[in-house]
Amino acid sequence: MRIALDAMGGDRGSEMAIQGALAAVRDRKDLNVILVGPRTIIEQQLVEHAGGNHDALGRISVHHASEVITMDDSPVEAVRKKKEATIMVGFDLVKKNLADAVVSAGNSGATMAAAVRKLGRLSGISRPGIASFFPTLKKPVMLMDIGANVDCRPQHLYQFAVMASSCSRLLLNLDHPRIGLLSIGEEIGKGNALVKDTYELLKQSPLNFIGNVEGRDVYRGDVDVIVCDGFVGNIALKISEGLADAAMQMLKREIMKTWRAKLGYLLIRQAVNGFKKQVDYAEYGGAPLLGINGTGIICHGASNSIAIRNAIEVASNMVHNRVNDAIIQALGEYAA
Amino acid sequence: MRIALDAMGGDRGSEMAIQGALAAVRDRKDLNVILVGPRTIIEQQLVEHAGGNHDALGRISVHHASEVITMDDSPVEAVRKKKEATIMVGFDLVKKNLADAVVSAGNSGATMAAAVRKLGRLSGISRPGIASFFPTLKKPVMLMDIGANVDCRPQHLYQFAVMASSCSRLLLNLDHPRIGLLSIGEEIGKGNALVKDTYELLKQSPLNFIGNVEGRDVYRGDVDVIVCDGFVGNIALKISEGLADAAMQMLKREIMKTWRAKLGYLLIRQAVNGFKKQVDYAEYGGAPLLGINGTGIICHGASNSIAIRNAIEVASNMVHNRVNDAIIQALGEYAA
Repeated sequence: MRIALDAMGGDRGSEMAIQGALAAVRDRKDLNVILVGPRTIIEQQLVEHAGGNHDALGRISVHHASEVITMDDSPVEAVRKKKEATIMVGFDLVKKNLADAVVSAGNSGATMAAAVRKLGRLSGISRPGIASFFPTLKKPVMLMDIGANVDCRPQHLYQFAVMASSCSRLLLNLDHPRIGLLSIGEEIGKGNALVKDTYELLKQSPLNFIGNVEGRDVYRGDVDVIVCDGFVGNIALKISEGLADAAMQMLKREIMKTWRAKLGYLLIRQAVNGFKKQVDYAEYGGAPLLGINGTGIICHGASNSIAIRNAIEVASNMVHNRVNDAIIQALGEYAA
Repeated sequence: MRIALDAMGGDRGSEMAIQGALAAVRDRKDLNVILVGPRTIIEQQLVEHAGGNHDALGRISVHHASEVITMDDSPVEAVRKKKEATIMVGFDLVKKNLADAVVSAGNSGATMAAAVRKLGRLSGISRPGIASFFPTLKKPVMLMDIGANVDCRPQHLYQFAVMASSCSRLLLNLDHPRIGLLSIGEEIGKGNALVKDTYELLKQSPLNFIGNVEGRDVYRGDVDVIVCDGFVGNIALKISEGLADAAMQMLKREIMKTWRAKLGYLLIRQAVNGFKKQVDYAEYGGAPLLGINGTGIICHGASNSIAIRNAIEVASNMVHNRVNDAIIQALGEYAA
């Protein structure tokens, strides 16, 4: 298993990628990681962080790439102009069968654009998209699309459902993932025009479609996959992050008002950390690109080394479980 | 000031309405509340709860209405068939100038439909909508629309911006409310087709338009009004409620694991309550219907008496500050 890791993606520098790679090869002995970035810099940092771990160094290599696509770059322009960018070179390694998957914490639009440009779409898929795991009171739920496709037709949402169903079935070991359609009421007929038409498509499909789910159901965990267009999915993701941040700040402001509460906070800190771990995106291994003819994982820009390690793990599992073959097979069965 | 209050709206029974009315007239001496519901039942409950408070009883009257629109009723059918429903009778009182505004914690779709049917739209408004205050790290932000209009054109979102701007200016005493457009990136050109076209309309308007805001900015409080279509707004509202509930449950689960944390929780409980009060929708006085030729406030179905009292307060302020006149004037100025 060979994972190409964008060493220059992410807001926190190449150290996070290197530490993530080291953690990943430490945990899985069948794994090789190819760090993609400026060779001299990355090799030097790698030796520093590896600290003489020869087994790790033997399974982490560096592949040179001279350019970087930044968060501010326009994805479409960037993949056209920056042909030597880390993320372009990463997907090129997959294309040439020198790597099995790509992981990047860089510009997510550019990562998607690079994947489509280098590898193309899966046969039968009109719009690749980005899926993401959300923590819930029970098992994590996979939401798709979280931002790649802002204007969708029912057929696109239907394909998201097929892809996310296959992916979550194999990654989370579910027999028949329950598929929900994100809407503003549970009853049939609730929602906008896109949702109403998608409802009909999903109802007629062999997918385990359980109907509409509301925003307030996302975190309950009574469904395995939630389908929505990329505009709505991105708002859902970002508003959740924003609320979590703001709530934590508001609560801290209240706690800092009295000594009593400050003392109380010291006593519950361990519980708070346990809670944070439950909802931390770093634990969920990044967001799979689904619908490309290959395997790619996008990590949050602020990813730490744990997030990178977990994303490498998810990428390996996707390749190992042949998620793309399952998607193609499901599409074929459903068409017939 | 005469506020018609739907005594049968809300999941928690008529007691919440009656207690809310009593609290409202206690706080504001210029206020009269008309409880709309089955006369015998409501009058009996009112006398029980008032406990001999003659001033309150003198300013709370009961207007008979025999039917109730439930949460499960289809709004459009219900307002056509249940002509004697509390919410229909409430808006009828406004139409006949026997009340100045309506407050209801009942079926929000039916409340909107009843308002439009009885009072009609404000001159120049194509689509009335529902605005709602969200708590933030700074001042509350008004988001519109939160569910009345699921498929919108740019002109509708532009009108939401005009209406919410006038309303928040008068209710929150702001000079030039900052208007943001909910999207998936701050830069111009980010978003779906609706957002891109709306951006142009808002940029050319005399509104204080500050550009796109992302989901993660909603709770920061750096903007006074956020505009979106009712599908997206409803998802934003409901996902926030769902996350808040789930996070609290997850945190409690962690805290219950150790005695140390349980003790800590006792010490921070006051701070937690202070935090809850900050984010409690009950504190924000319900969601104004904007764009109808009259004044109406929708409360959360689970509203307690504080939420009802605050909604009556907001309704009074809207009437007192002539929000509808301001909207008509703003529309006229902007058209010219």
